[in-house]
Amino acid sequence: MHTSLVAALDIGGTKIAGALVDGDGDLLLRAQRPTPAEGDAETVMGAVSAVLDDLAASPLWPGVVAVGIGSAGPVDRSAGTVSPVNVPGWRGFPLVERVSRAVGGLPVDLVGDGVAVTAAEHWRGAARGFGNALCMVVSTGVGGGLVLDGRLHTGPTGNAGHIGHISVDLDGDLCPCGARGCVERIASGPNIARRALEQGWTPGRDGDATAAAVAAAARAGDPVAIASFERAAQALAAGIAATATLADLDIAVIGGGVAGAGEVLFDPLRRSLRDYAALSFVRRLTIAPARMGTDAGLVGAAAAALLGRRPERTPA
Amino acid sequence: MHTSLVAALDIGGTKIAGALVDGDGDLLLRAQRPTPAEGDAETVMGAVSAVLDDLAASPLWPGVVAVGIGSAGPVDRSAGTVSPVNVPGWRGFPLVERVSRAVGGLPVDLVGDGVAVTAAEHWRGAARGFGNALCMVVSTGVGGGLVLDGRLHTGPTGNAGHIGHISVDLDGDLCPCGARGCVERIASGPNIARRALEQGWTPGRDGDATAAAVAAAARAGDPVAIASFERAAQALAAGIAATATLADLDIAVIGGGVAGAGEVLFDPLRRSLRDYAALSFVRRLTIAPARMGTDAGLVGAAAAALLGRRPERTPA
Repeated sequence: MHTSLVAALDIGGTKIAGALVDGDGDLLLRAQRPTPAEGDAETVMGAVSAVLDDLAASPLWPGVVAVGIGSAGPVDRSAGTVSPVNVPGWRGFPLVERVSRAVGGLPVDLVGDGVAVTAAEHWRGAARGFGNALCMVVSTGVGGGLVLDGRLHTGPTGNAGHIGHISVDLDGDLCPCGARGCVERIASGPNIARRALEQGWTPGRDGDATAAAVAAAARAGDPVAIASFERAAQALAAGIAATATLADLDIAVIGGGVAGAGEVLFDPLRRSLRDYAALSFVRRLTIAPARMGTDAGLVGAAAAALLGRRPERTPA
Repeated sequence: MHTSLVAALDIGGTKIAGALVDGDGDLLLRAQRPTPAEGDAETVMGAVSAVLDDLAASPLWPGVVAVGIGSAGPVDRSAGTVSPVNVPGWRGFPLVERVSRAVGGLPVDLVGDGVAVTAAEHWRGAARGFGNALCMVVSTGVGGGLVLDGRLHTGPTGNAGHIGHISVDLDGDLCPCGARGCVERIASGPNIARRALEQGWTPGRDGDATAAAVAAAARAGDPVAIASFERAAQALAAGIAATATLADLDIAVIGGGVAGAGEVLFDPLRRSLRDYAALSFVRRLTIAPARMGTDAGLVGAAAAALLGRRPERTPA
């Protein structure tokens, strides 16, 4: 008997990655194309097809039993369509049907990228063994996903856990999504940098004005840089506490480029969490950095493909 | 073959209610005692035992296969203990063990009161047939519960869906729970009344300064009363949108005394929801008034008892 493989696709605004993944979550073969983000629908689909063709050329391909897709959102899992914000040519694009046709009718599962990362952290990373988890990516945006009762919770549309766009400041600044005071509007990398600049922080001689540069300044003791990370941490803490209050969580796992700032973020985050995680059942929440790194999207897409094929329940 | 019955207990700060409930959710026999809220642990338990004795005296009792308890929170479902805020004699009280002993070892299930109300609305009320729902009680406090993937989501501690204590205003007023800007701190009945009084609303000649009186003034066109309900609606909208963004919901059901204000609350709530429910998958959310009335706690406790005994999944 052959070990089952799945094909995984991780679709973002910059690249389209694919892999053949075994039942342990190991990546056996990888392929990648830049995302022709400004192209029309068929041009973008062409890049997906090229990645699939690379995978299908492998002698391993006959062992593939399903395809999992993690895509930049919004996605619609029930309709099988995607409308990634940064890929304007795809609006309600029937990705599941097109991929299914390209792979000869194999089952295809679709989730949002935050859900995929969560599946990966739960399968092989920092959320492994936890029954109820929030996994977040804090980067250019803020995304996330949920594990509930030991299982990945995709929600009917595949977008559950979208913590970046919950409002923690109902009178706050307008967010590009249309709401006010969203976690992402306060805590994303670009907003950390924007706030530091507005408050008088000046980049070094290299001109680097990213959140990573603000983090370096904070580590060097710059009070404006520190304050910008503290405000981001406060918004993340309020959002994480809200999620734990609603979902009754055991752990929150935080990854992404901004989380790479380390204690500059995690230290004020743990302090702020004590302010917002007030109820007894929420105070038990622990915080951990993500472990899966840049392969999380592919591993998670593979996990999503395997969802219906094995018991996903893990010990709580 | 006999129809299975369950015994249901609804434990609050004012009364302890019990019922025998059949498989259709109909209450066949009811019993009730005032909660000796200031009494010690055994005094309160005595009232529970008296209710159970009333039920056990019925010729129907031999048909009872399980007991369901919905209790004022916080509860700890995994430990089987309760610590209701308004019953100081019970702190970590082992209610499940004590009830189980009182009923000869029948299985006993425990959930928080917000979860119980949700079970009731999903079984027989406004959330029936929906796969993903938030059910709320807006009253002296603000509570809630979740249905996810067609099933009641209790969370490991039985407190999931606690929407009253998520922060929607991270710099806002301190809440008695210890956090800031909680939905309950803005939208509960006492806070609606407090805000109206602070802004210059004066009660009528009967001296009634409750949220119900503010609602009557709002219906009569009083701008301060209207504004207080609008602010409550804004906080509820931000909290509901956050929950829908995290849990990918189909419907939010709102009951409780404040919801009884009707369009004075629901009209600004629907308007505010358009401001905060910005993402496409959140905009599909519908809002409905609760249908189960004052029996929701008992019917929901019965539903919780039946959870492990029948497929709870309903069509999405």
